[in-house]
Amino acid sequence: MSKICHDLCAIKGVVFDVDGVLSPSTIPLDTDGLPRRMVNIKDGYALQLAAKCGIKMAIISGADSPGVRERFEGLGIRDVYMKAGQKLPVLRGWLEANGLEAGEVAYVGDDIPDYECMREVGLPVAPHDAAVDIRRVARYISPCDGGYGVARDLLEEILKAQGHWLNAAKAFGW
Amino acid sequence: MSKICHDLCAIKGVVFDVDGVLSPSTIPLDTDGLPRRMVNIKDGYALQLAAKCGIKMAIISGADSPGVRERFEGLGIRDVYMKAGQKLPVLRGWLEANGLEAGEVAYVGDDIPDYECMREVGLPVAPHDAAVDIRRVARYISPCDGGYGVARDLLEEILKAQGHWLNAAKAFGW
Amino acid sequence: MSKICHDLCAIKGVVFDVDGVLSPSTIPLDTDGLPRRMVNIKDGYALQLAAKCGIKMAIISGADSPGVRERFEGLGIRDVYMKAGQKLPVLRGWLEANGLEAGEVAYVGDDIPDYECMREVGLPVAPHDAAVDIRRVARYISPCDGGYGVARDLLEEILKAQGHWLNAAKAFGW
Amino acid sequence: MSKICHDLCAIKGVVFDVDGVLSPSTIPLDTDGLPRRMVNIKDGYALQLAAKCGIKMAIISGADSPGVRERFEGLGIRDVYMKAGQKLPVLRGWLEANGLEAGEVAYVGDDIPDYECMREVGLPVAPHDAAVDIRRVARYISPCDGGYGVARDLLEEILKAQGHWLNAAKAFGW
Repeated sequence: MSKICHDLCAIKGVVFDVDGVLSPSTIPLDTDGLPRRMVNIKDGYALQLAAKCGIKMAIISGADSPGVRERFEGLGIRDVYMKAGQKLPVLRGWLEANGLEAGEVAYVGDDIPDYECMREVGLPVAPHDAAVDIRRVARYISPCDGGYGVARDLLEEILKAQGHWLNAAKAFGW
Repeated sequence: MSKICHDLCAIKGVVFDVDGVLSPSTIPLDTDGLPRRMVNIKDGYALQLAAKCGIKMAIISGADSPGVRERFEGLGIRDVYMKAGQKLPVLRGWLEANGLEAGEVAYVGDDIPDYECMREVGLPVAPHDAAVDIRRVARYISPCDGGYGVARDLLEEILKAQGHWLNAAKAFGW
Repeated sequence: MSKICHDLCAIKGVVFDVDGVLSPSTIPLDTDGLPRRMVNIKDGYALQLAAKCGIKMAIISGADSPGVRERFEGLGIRDVYMKAGQKLPVLRGWLEANGLEAGEVAYVGDDIPDYECMREVGLPVAPHDAAVDIRRVARYISPCDGGYGVARDLLEEILKAQGHWLNAAKAFGW
Repeated sequence: MSKICHDLCAIKGVVFDVDGVLSPSTIPLDTDGLPRRMVNIKDGYALQLAAKCGIKMAIISGADSPGVRERFEGLGIRDVYMKAGQKLPVLRGWLEANGLEAGEVAYVGDDIPDYECMREVGLPVAPHDAAVDIRRVARYISPCDGGYGVARDLLEEILKAQGHWLNAAKAFGW
């Protein structure tokens, strides 16, 4: 039924990288030399709905991006890890703290620092413009580029599979 | 005559969502975690001309976007509703206050919070990159993505049908 | 020889609109409700070279865009007209003040407020994404969208025709 | 093996232009009239890895772009030359100071001010959207536009050829 070849009803958690996933690969540079992230509003709708529906979500980023924590905590992502020099230990700690098996989790990454996490989880997902080595280890490659709806694409499939999409009690508000 | 299969001469009002309609789906994030909207200048030309020609227009947004009210009030959209948690009651209130029938109104929306409003009006319009459920209930799907000229595309068709396009008295100034 | 079907050696002046020509149609909105323009760096190279080579250039914009005057005066465009409610009188005044015939001038415009100026000059040019009515009166439609190199495309053709391109004395510096 | 027809094992240094190479050709204009650069995060990953692997790198820009020095020095590019009115003498000085032959160096440029440097080095590289005269003298034209991954595309090929890609000791951190 879904375009994703995986049992989406079994997915209990989703973990996102920021740059190249929730934000595009090419972004403005502030005058102090720090990149400024961009966000996709349709990603935002799906993220807040997934949070309301009980999907556990985390962000693991190697960078320390101003505004990212505020934006995504506001949408209901409780666990936002920044400055993660190595991502795999952070992912494993999060799984344990939340009582999740790696097989019940999707991880969306786009570049080499995500490689080990992609190999750890049950459903590794890559944006269309991910690095070739990441595309190779992804189980699902979204038609959306990073920052242009890849989180929406994945979450909409998961929420539809779990019966939460266009559900009148939660869907039409924000 | 028009590419829109609808009696455009009967349209007296047009209502717009902001994110994914007047502004693109992917936009910069300010360092305080608030997205910064983007606007299309050709949309702007059509909006100010439509206002001059007596088309009643409103904006209904779930967000509270800094700068949006100033921009669009300056173009002649009198009614700008922000932080609309549920959009349908706001739309109905606006129709009543302006003595408009739902059948005389176009609504341009791109995502699930617009779903009920799309089903309410006579001419529901979707940008090309709207959510699939919104495209399904649209009577006209613009070739333009949200933020890249969808308002212009619609208003140009309406104003041409009503004889207001390239009218020397109003067209060449701004 | 050139892809532009016009005697480019006879062009002595070039006039540009800003929004949708030197800057893209879709641009960021500042929090005070004013759009922030974007510029193309390859346009910039051609503009400063054309100025050095004696091409007379002007900008006529209906808006008052912060930063635009500083950017383009810095590249050598001496005459920058902002807040031009009607553009044709401004164009005619500029032609007269500079001793130019309309037939010796190119005008690059993208939307209805440019319509009368397009019809006035010898070489009316439109970006690829110009309004359909503007494309109709253009003698040359660039393959570049507004803000994405249309000024470069035109000036490179003019400077090549006039023997100023890749001229060692002027070309390699900036 | 590589898509670049050149002995990549022999490359010891890489020099980049900024506008149209590390940053896109079309970029936002600040209200003071200075363009604000944009950067690609996947470029960033490759740049810091190349620096760790001993590739000597420099930036030579004709402009003085706020934030560029901080961003790229932070990624490990030691030599950042701004306001280079003529680029060739700067390139030659850098080669000499670093004991490099021109034949061992790649130069990535997109416009006429890069022309002489492109002709000087062993491996001249152009983004897909480079000026036609620059494409003509490039030995490799990347499929990526300037600012959208051209540095990543080149460095990934060099690092793979030299055995440094996906090397566990350096690859997965940042």
